[in-house]
Amino acid sequence: MAEAPRIAIDAMGGDGGLAVMLAGVALARRQWPGLTFDLVGDEAAINAALDQHPNLRAASEIIHAPETIDGSERAGQAIRRAKTTSMGIAIDAVKQGRAGAAVSAGNTGALMAMAKLALRTMPGIDRPALAALLPSLGEKDFVMLDLGANTECETRNLVEFAIMGAAYSRIALGIERPRVSLLNIGTEDQKGTEEIRDAAAALRAADHLHMNFDGFIEGDKIARGLTDVVVCDGFSGNISLKTMEGTARFVTDLLRRAFTSSIRSKFGFLISRPATELMRHHLDPDNHNGAVFLGLNGVVVKSHGSASPKGVANAVGVAAKLVDANITQRIAEDLALIKANGK
Amino acid sequence: MAEAPRIAIDAMGGDGGLAVMLAGVALARRQWPGLTFDLVGDEAAINAALDQHPNLRAASEIIHAPETIDGSERAGQAIRRAKTTSMGIAIDAVKQGRAGAAVSAGNTGALMAMAKLALRTMPGIDRPALAALLPSLGEKDFVMLDLGANTECETRNLVEFAIMGAAYSRIALGIERPRVSLLNIGTEDQKGTEEIRDAAAALRAADHLHMNFDGFIEGDKIARGLTDVVVCDGFSGNISLKTMEGTARFVTDLLRRAFTSSIRSKFGFLISRPATELMRHHLDPDNHNGAVFLGLNGVVVKSHGSASPKGVANAVGVAAKLVDANITQRIAEDLALIKANGK
Repeated sequence: MAEAPRIAIDAMGGDGGLAVMLAGVALARRQWPGLTFDLVGDEAAINAALDQHPNLRAASEIIHAPETIDGSERAGQAIRRAKTTSMGIAIDAVKQGRAGAAVSAGNTGALMAMAKLALRTMPGIDRPALAALLPSLGEKDFVMLDLGANTECETRNLVEFAIMGAAYSRIALGIERPRVSLLNIGTEDQKGTEEIRDAAAALRAADHLHMNFDGFIEGDKIARGLTDVVVCDGFSGNISLKTMEGTARFVTDLLRRAFTSSIRSKFGFLISRPATELMRHHLDPDNHNGAVFLGLNGVVVKSHGSASPKGVANAVGVAAKLVDANITQRIAEDLALIKANGK
Repeated sequence: MAEAPRIAIDAMGGDGGLAVMLAGVALARRQWPGLTFDLVGDEAAINAALDQHPNLRAASEIIHAPETIDGSERAGQAIRRAKTTSMGIAIDAVKQGRAGAAVSAGNTGALMAMAKLALRTMPGIDRPALAALLPSLGEKDFVMLDLGANTECETRNLVEFAIMGAAYSRIALGIERPRVSLLNIGTEDQKGTEEIRDAAAALRAADHLHMNFDGFIEGDKIARGLTDVVVCDGFSGNISLKTMEGTARFVTDLLRRAFTSSIRSKFGFLISRPATELMRHHLDPDNHNGAVFLGLNGVVVKSHGSASPKGVANAVGVAAKLVDANITQRIAEDLALIKANGK
């Protein structure tokens, strides 16, 4: 795309509702001035909320949606209401080519199902995957996928996730030949399920791809800056991602308890504050908000339900970057490469 | 057992070798004075090392083993050398009834395979599982299993893990009716694999067991003190456990960087030190060392390869507690209960 992308926003999803979503989109518009938006949801409510964001009003069109998808609604039910809900209409804007990407903070399962049905899976891809950028001790973030879109995966799926994850890493982090690893319970060849072992063999043989396949990686190594892309099935990926979130919170909770346990330690904390703020910044989920469904004919980004405006802006930025770099085309090229060389 | 248990020690396993193992066992002997030991390994080396631990010499017999199992040796090869290796001979002491439990810091796969072959799985149990006590934000630790013994699990395995984990929780933590949860990627009924959903249905129906089954739990909630036993297949359990270890180290590394980033923050850290030491104590892997193979006719405990003497002593304490409370009998009773009521 020559001009800056247009992004369709499901304005009604997320725990903080319309106010947080629009504040986040307004923030994104200030960070990336060329962006334009379709704001999808209750027209009157959006109109009223835009009074606080004149910069956003100037760059947006409101598309009215009479209904919203509930957080607990099953995907099977949700897809029947695609045409009347803010989530469904935002995705349709991508399908119609009005918008380059859709961003929603609503029900993940519903978003996945609607996106798949409306945009269809890319030719050559069996199943799309949910990918995110996560913080590491290295210089750059790393990409991890699948984070929960596919409970069980075959060899073919894992190989395709590796290709999609590498394309994402190149675009989002600028790594020309990303180091790709398969999440496993050991690094020896015989470890793990048959699907994982076969995927490793296929990726090892595919040395013409734009990646360096590094074999298996264990759960304690993924955030150490040793790899750029971690590939796994959606079940273990979701367990690992949430264990990361829970453990980071666990340790920071212990730290808070420690720092408030005495006047002395409170004083020490105040002195160290500028330094610990840096750490908080690094761990802040808002700085890593925006998980992407890769493998669809169009870009759909999931913002965390509890994301702040800063987090929403980050998710919009992810969407804009992927549209701008034409991720779908990049994945298609790599798929052609692996097919041409006989997987 | 009326008297304090006798523990067979594989003296040759672990990264720190003989010196660390014996220092740990000597420490355990001081903490639990009734314990006696079979120290299995190179006789001359053990004899020499015992000069530093007269208290341990008085409570031990040395059993010579001419060989040791290598850390990278495949389980299939290792079991052929069971009769001549320190690991195999320590397990055999349990089989022969000389010792109540065996403790090894060696190769986990080999230990599992040897223990299964020598001690056999308990009647009524399909597959043994690796269980550990992990730190939580609650008042007590929680039990998690399987941590890597079974890459793929059927419904029956998950149900049996729940029974074994609850028995472990009762013995190790004194919780009469432990809260038991299945690790999953969501809490709604339809989430996860068929095996997990069926295990949930079976456990929900089995209300005569000594546990409160709480349904599904996600990875970010497991350490929050909301549950006493987390049940999962060995693949996702191992991924989750190692992600916990990696993330805890990641956050403490960031903290260290933060605290050493300026003279001011270093000063703050020194002042807060007594408080952060408490946190370190809570997170110290040595305080949670000692993973147990549950479901065998005998107790086998795996000490972490990198455990310090304090960690080894903790693993020995875990073994002694399980023998003392007759875990095998307790599991058999609960199995009989679920069978009598028709699983």
